[in-house]
Amino acid sequence: MTPAAPPLKHYLQFKDFSAAEYAYLFERTWLIKRKFKTYQKHHSLCDRTLAMIFEKASTRTRVSFEAGMYQMGGSVVHLTTGDSQLGRAEPIEDSARVISRMTDLVMIRTYEQSKIERFAAHSRVPVINGLTNEFHPCQILADLFTWLEHRAARADGGIDVGALRGIRVAWVGDGNNMANTWVQAAQVLGFKVHVSTPSGYAIKPEVAGVSADDACWQAFDNPLQACAGADLVTTDVWTSMGFEAENEARRQAFAAWCVTPALMAQAHPEALFMHCLPAHRGEEVAAEVIDGPQSVVWDEAENRMHVQKALMEYLLLGRQ
Amino acid sequence: MTPAAPPLKHYLQFKDFSAAEYAYLFERTWLIKRKFKTYQKHHSLCDRTLAMIFEKASTRTRVSFEAGMYQMGGSVVHLTTGDSQLGRAEPIEDSARVISRMTDLVMIRTYEQSKIERFAAHSRVPVINGLTNEFHPCQILADLFTWLEHRAARADGGIDVGALRGIRVAWVGDGNNMANTWVQAAQVLGFKVHVSTPSGYAIKPEVAGVSADDACWQAFDNPLQACAGADLVTTDVWTSMGFEAENEARRQAFAAWCVTPALMAQAHPEALFMHCLPAHRGEEVAAEVIDGPQSVVWDEAENRMHVQKALMEYLLLGRQ
Amino acid sequence: MTPAAPPLKHYLQFKDFSAAEYAYLFERTWLIKRKFKTYQKHHSLCDRTLAMIFEKASTRTRVSFEAGMYQMGGSVVHLTTGDSQLGRAEPIEDSARVISRMTDLVMIRTYEQSKIERFAAHSRVPVINGLTNEFHPCQILADLFTWLEHRAARADGGIDVGALRGIRVAWVGDGNNMANTWVQAAQVLGFKVHVSTPSGYAIKPEVAGVSADDACWQAFDNPLQACAGADLVTTDVWTSMGFEAENEARRQAFAAWCVTPALMAQAHPEALFMHCLPAHRGEEVAAEVIDGPQSVVWDEAENRMHVQKALMEYLLLGRQ
Repeated sequence: MTPAAPPLKHYLQFKDFSAAEYAYLFERTWLIKRKFKTYQKHHSLCDRTLAMIFEKASTRTRVSFEAGMYQMGGSVVHLTTGDSQLGRAEPIEDSARVISRMTDLVMIRTYEQSKIERFAAHSRVPVINGLTNEFHPCQILADLFTWLEHRAARADGGIDVGALRGIRVAWVGDGNNMANTWVQAAQVLGFKVHVSTPSGYAIKPEVAGVSADDACWQAFDNPLQACAGADLVTTDVWTSMGFEAENEARRQAFAAWCVTPALMAQAHPEALFMHCLPAHRGEEVAAEVIDGPQSVVWDEAENRMHVQKALMEYLLLGRQ
Repeated sequence: MTPAAPPLKHYLQFKDFSAAEYAYLFERTWLIKRKFKTYQKHHSLCDRTLAMIFEKASTRTRVSFEAGMYQMGGSVVHLTTGDSQLGRAEPIEDSARVISRMTDLVMIRTYEQSKIERFAAHSRVPVINGLTNEFHPCQILADLFTWLEHRAARADGGIDVGALRGIRVAWVGDGNNMANTWVQAAQVLGFKVHVSTPSGYAIKPEVAGVSADDACWQAFDNPLQACAGADLVTTDVWTSMGFEAENEARRQAFAAWCVTPALMAQAHPEALFMHCLPAHRGEEVAAEVIDGPQSVVWDEAENRMHVQKALMEYLLLGRQ
Repeated sequence: MTPAAPPLKHYLQFKDFSAAEYAYLFERTWLIKRKFKTYQKHHSLCDRTLAMIFEKASTRTRVSFEAGMYQMGGSVVHLTTGDSQLGRAEPIEDSARVISRMTDLVMIRTYEQSKIERFAAHSRVPVINGLTNEFHPCQILADLFTWLEHRAARADGGIDVGALRGIRVAWVGDGNNMANTWVQAAQVLGFKVHVSTPSGYAIKPEVAGVSADDACWQAFDNPLQACAGADLVTTDVWTSMGFEAENEARRQAFAAWCVTPALMAQAHPEALFMHCLPAHRGEEVAAEVIDGPQSVVWDEAENRMHVQKALMEYLLLGRQ
């Protein structure tokens, strides 16, 4: 155990950390993952407890945070809506005060970003955004690490966050929490996102927290054009959790926003395909793409666990 | 691991322990809490598993027991009604026989006290009452420790259970499981509870397990009189879990049983305010009181964890 | 941690293992149980995480796997249908790919055997059948160990899987997943099962995976005849989970398939009675039998935990 805790820091959206902090996090993830793969113990969070609060169902977020915490010697309390719906039985502020008295770290998956911000404002311990309507920073953390890891493998080198500078990422589909977070990440790390969404599903710059004319992003009506020369093509389900009622309308609006081999052919020949999963083959992505050689979706899923381990360690212990 | 286990003992209601046992428990809590706050490992329950059975939802009880067990090196199996409703799929006695064969300790939150008593009668391992319709001994354990801790801080001394002797505790509101347990605690530890409830919501001495004329408690029609000279003022929500249908009738009946600054002004100037939470500001307590300088509700919540750690250790290992 | 993992192996039905493997497993269980009973640490699965996926409710399976994993120094992620219904949000194959990237071992309780087989086919880590409509191998593992343990106690000797050769097991009741698994076990280990079911509830050899005329089993219309000379009499509830709609029809059909003292009188005088629980006294078993001297149902329940510890260790580390 480390007696001295670093200053209280939360991870509520991507721009909460600087480029230098991301450089540290990705290098630390690289080390932590290598130790895990060679069965070396890494119990830096012994006696630390993570509270996970889920107001939306989850498999990936659940398993990745929970298994990650165990691998670092820590423990987890898993709270679902049935146990504790934020803001129902008591004000969110009171829940934050109580839970942060008994645990060392809190991960929240909820609806409005404002809920997690209110929680964090009254928490004594770090709070992590495990997905909100507006942002999903842990997923983008995993995606960026996965891109860097594959580049390192090709270059036979190590993790170099500078390699992200100037790359082009094509986002094809819904202007949702993933799209918002990609745009923020581009701003922080100096790359560019080509965002192609159907009419009516564009990202709202004021929600993403960037200006409409920031060089970090550009909107495209045509997904083919968005993918031209891209280093990474990525998408998400057409209907995210909470929007099920719009399912049929969305299926029609998004029909041309499927990542097909034709779309991938527009991208750089070594471009990677990513998807945060679960995926619907034949809707937002063709089976040939997600199950093809450019797809790194399973590495991406596994890397959720490794980047989050580095993130939790950083929030609790600072740089090591 | 300690090969020798102490004689089987349960904690089903407050009077299951003697004043001498509480003296030990509070001193042990003091030590365990201090070690926790200075990041000293205290893994006295390594390889021990706590089964938690919840038939009513919970945040505080859940997190405090679970995080507490982890901090002592133990582990937790969390069963909810969905997994196992006591007495539905099989007789409670059979559940007790099976669960107590596979775990070392059982915490139960349920409705009737008789259920937990039947479980305990057929359990091979200690059983802890995590709240029933009749009693909530773990909460009072936390409340008493919190009072002693604040007294120790003022006196610049240590924990002295004798300091409780002769104090006056004002209970304002529903004659519920908390009120019953306060009255039992007063009998065991030699203090007095002034109980003020609306007509029709009085405590039933035969349920609380004290005689109607015992010196440990006194009923007051007027909450102002109950608070006169009190060393501690405490209340609970007007409508406990399971009584939601009576909500509107209770709001009317309890209107004058709100802990306001005027009520607190009747108490000793150094009196503390406690609430087991969740709290409804403007109903059973005014915001100025619960968020004011006499309120110790967040310490009280945190102390659930520390007293329960001492309790679990005592039941599993005896005095250390 | 052991750097070298054994070749990938699943435990989906009883015949996945050979007689020699069972001989090892039962001896290992004997050792692991003895260490547990004498408070000796056995942390062979440190840093290993078990994912448990429950599509049907469970107490025994839940507690036995979870507590067992903790006793071996490992950890558990508990997923229920609410978190992740296999095949709903994404193809089972994708769930298998993702979950097996983040955990070391998967236990699944589900409906169709085909679901668990599809999961296993795409999993990077071992998969354990925690009950399907067709099989329940972990329960029979516990039952066989319990029989061997009681025999060892009578003989004042150790565990000898050869002692099962030639014994007669009477199965009285529904031709369900338990009955199928008993028949498979008889084939692998060289004993005989007398199966007596009401008309219309017979086992289907093609489902059990044995031929209709295999010497390992024999059907009896009359439960009294099935029990004649049996070394072990065992039954299960008349209505298993998922068949609740047939409850009334089953009560009538099964009326004569109750394990009464008269039935037990047909068996060998030292015969044991087993039941995987929960039990309904007065339906499939008389109270005098399940609560009588020949019943070993509580040992049987506890032994779920010990055999599964040996099983998990074997799948993850191979022979020790």
